[in-house]
Amino acid sequence: MDPRIREHAETIVDHSIDLSAGENVVIDAHPQAEDLVVALHELVADREAHPLVVQNRAGKRFQRAFLRNHDGDFELPAHEMALYEEMDAYVAIRGSDNVTETADVDPETTAAYGTATQPLLNERLSKTWCLTQYPTASHAQLAQMSTEAYENFVWDAVAKDWEAVRDHQAQLVDILDGADEVRIRSGETTDVTMSIAGNPPLNDYGENNLPGGEVFTAPVPDSVDGEVLFDMPLYHQGREVTDVYLRFEDGDVVDHDAAKNEALLTEVLDTDEGASRLGELGIGMNRDVDRFTYNMLFDEKMGDTVHMAVGRAYEDTVGEDNERNESAVHVDMIVDMSEDSEIVVDGEQIQTDGTFVFEE
Amino acid sequence: MDPRIREHAETIVDHSIDLSAGENVVIDAHPQAEDLVVALHELVADREAHPLVVQNRAGKRFQRAFLRNHDGDFELPAHEMALYEEMDAYVAIRGSDNVTETADVDPETTAAYGTATQPLLNERLSKTWCLTQYPTASHAQLAQMSTEAYENFVWDAVAKDWEAVRDHQAQLVDILDGADEVRIRSGETTDVTMSIAGNPPLNDYGENNLPGGEVFTAPVPDSVDGEVLFDMPLYHQGREVTDVYLRFEDGDVVDHDAAKNEALLTEVLDTDEGASRLGELGIGMNRDVDRFTYNMLFDEKMGDTVHMAVGRAYEDTVGEDNERNESAVHVDMIVDMSEDSEIVVDGEQIQTDGTFVFEE
Repeated sequence: MDPRIREHAETIVDHSIDLSAGENVVIDAHPQAEDLVVALHELVADREAHPLVVQNRAGKRFQRAFLRNHDGDFELPAHEMALYEEMDAYVAIRGSDNVTETADVDPETTAAYGTATQPLLNERLSKTWCLTQYPTASHAQLAQMSTEAYENFVWDAVAKDWEAVRDHQAQLVDILDGADEVRIRSGETTDVTMSIAGNPPLNDYGENNLPGGEVFTAPVPDSVDGEVLFDMPLYHQGREVTDVYLRFEDGDVVDHDAAKNEALLTEVLDTDEGASRLGELGIGMNRDVDRFTYNMLFDEKMGDTVHMAVGRAYEDTVGEDNERNESAVHVDMIVDMSEDSEIVVDGEQIQTDGTFVFEE
Repeated sequence: MDPRIREHAETIVDHSIDLSAGENVVIDAHPQAEDLVVALHELVADREAHPLVVQNRAGKRFQRAFLRNHDGDFELPAHEMALYEEMDAYVAIRGSDNVTETADVDPETTAAYGTATQPLLNERLSKTWCLTQYPTASHAQLAQMSTEAYENFVWDAVAKDWEAVRDHQAQLVDILDGADEVRIRSGETTDVTMSIAGNPPLNDYGENNLPGGEVFTAPVPDSVDGEVLFDMPLYHQGREVTDVYLRFEDGDVVDHDAAKNEALLTEVLDTDEGASRLGELGIGMNRDVDRFTYNMLFDEKMGDTVHMAVGRAYEDTVGEDNERNESAVHVDMIVDMSEDSEIVVDGEQIQTDGTFVFEE
């Protein structure tokens, strides 16, 4: 086994989920991630915790088969809910044989499944959790990289000094903490303002996401105004959506289009009421994620980028007295901030062309 | 996908577990069985039931890692227990990359794990369940067959007319129902008697085991006397045990040896009190299982064989007023009955050299 896999497992167990004796952990893994699952079991045994491996549904052939053969009238599975209710920690390991495996599933069916099973997601998110990546050949292909180069990319991104990352990012947290208006401007195509008043900015240093490397919070739902061209593409349900354009008025998306797969974007926005409002504003700060790999877990962490998600806001990012945007979806989209761009907080320019004031 | 895989899935869903709308099903699968898992999901969706795929521990690298790195002080995992409590049906699909993957795990550790997690097994066995096989290359190798020949062997064995099997086997059930003493004699090496008074004989026609093909019940624990040489080998925890010899007095094993891996046999018998008493007497009746493949799911169903298991008795095989043998283990072992052998029930010879009285 590549020694970096055991290091990856150590980071998950000791840093990301900080596993304790007696805890019940679910490892939600793609079979290709077997080496990482083995390495995790060595540590879970040593920590005297209790593992159960479930097979990740995302992008799997069996999930495609289930969704395509279902009448769309989904119900919440009580046994899976019971599992998560008794679970203390959740490790989801992304991997794939074919990242476009669910490309021929009706987006409406996927949305209906997401809505019906949302309590499963909420339950998982209420526990200690970590989402990470195993470097499979199909994800390397998605990134247009060789498998070996992609392995290096993933394991380098994971093997950071996360305490140093925390300290660096804390400078941005200090700026956003207690702030009100955030304005994001990039080129002629993006100029949007939103309030984050009362919502805490969170420092992501490799806990819920591994790799981490962003500072994020939730916009006040009805405060978003302006337009955004997300100039970095996204993969959603095995399909690429490019040049997503959203125009907001009083928090709602009032106009949208995309150069490719616009129908999928429309389906996402129509999922439920919260799906056409923002649930997250994130600022990528991980300069070791040095290339775009069509994988949001990495892409949204890139330095010189900002991302916004339509849909569900994370509970921890919403202040006690603020409204939380609820939705069955949470879809991140990215704006490149490296040129002719600025982030302005309460009138003060805090980032210019990707460089923060505290980096100058 | 080979069309026989979809037929296999249909037999599981419609015959073995008879899945209904709204039921919560757990599919416990080896990743190599992906095609069968996909075919099952097509049907589970059509039947409007709720699937969850967990990764089979048996013989897996991650389970080896867990057991080898554990101090042996195992606890019951509450989250897995909660999953099974809310589950209606359980499908376990055997498969393997390497059937000897756990050959270097201390048998004492495995026994301790089995004891601590026995409530999980009991909970699964209390639900509708089916154990079946996916024809992997490693199981073909174990059987000393090509992969294609082994695929034919497995899918032929599964694709039987199970109603006809039920009717044929019912003739043996009729003989054993209400009987008292069973005597099994084979050559000079096996001559054992036991009472089955009050314990119902069960007709296995492809429900809990797929393939099925046996009639089985539980001996009255303290009634077993005599000696048995199990002349067919068994694989247990990735190790082959050959020529197991057991001598019983008043139900207890008072002497034992084996030509190969006797220490593993000793470990099994020492697991707990019930592990050195019989929990099952089974009579194989499936003549389509026409060769020994070192896989108990098939081997114990072979015509011209009898098997006995030390350890746990199945609940349904024990009459209300009878004692049930309890144990963390259930290990089947087989006697070849094709030559110089007889089964005698209450003084009447019901099988001679493998041929039943109703087959003459």
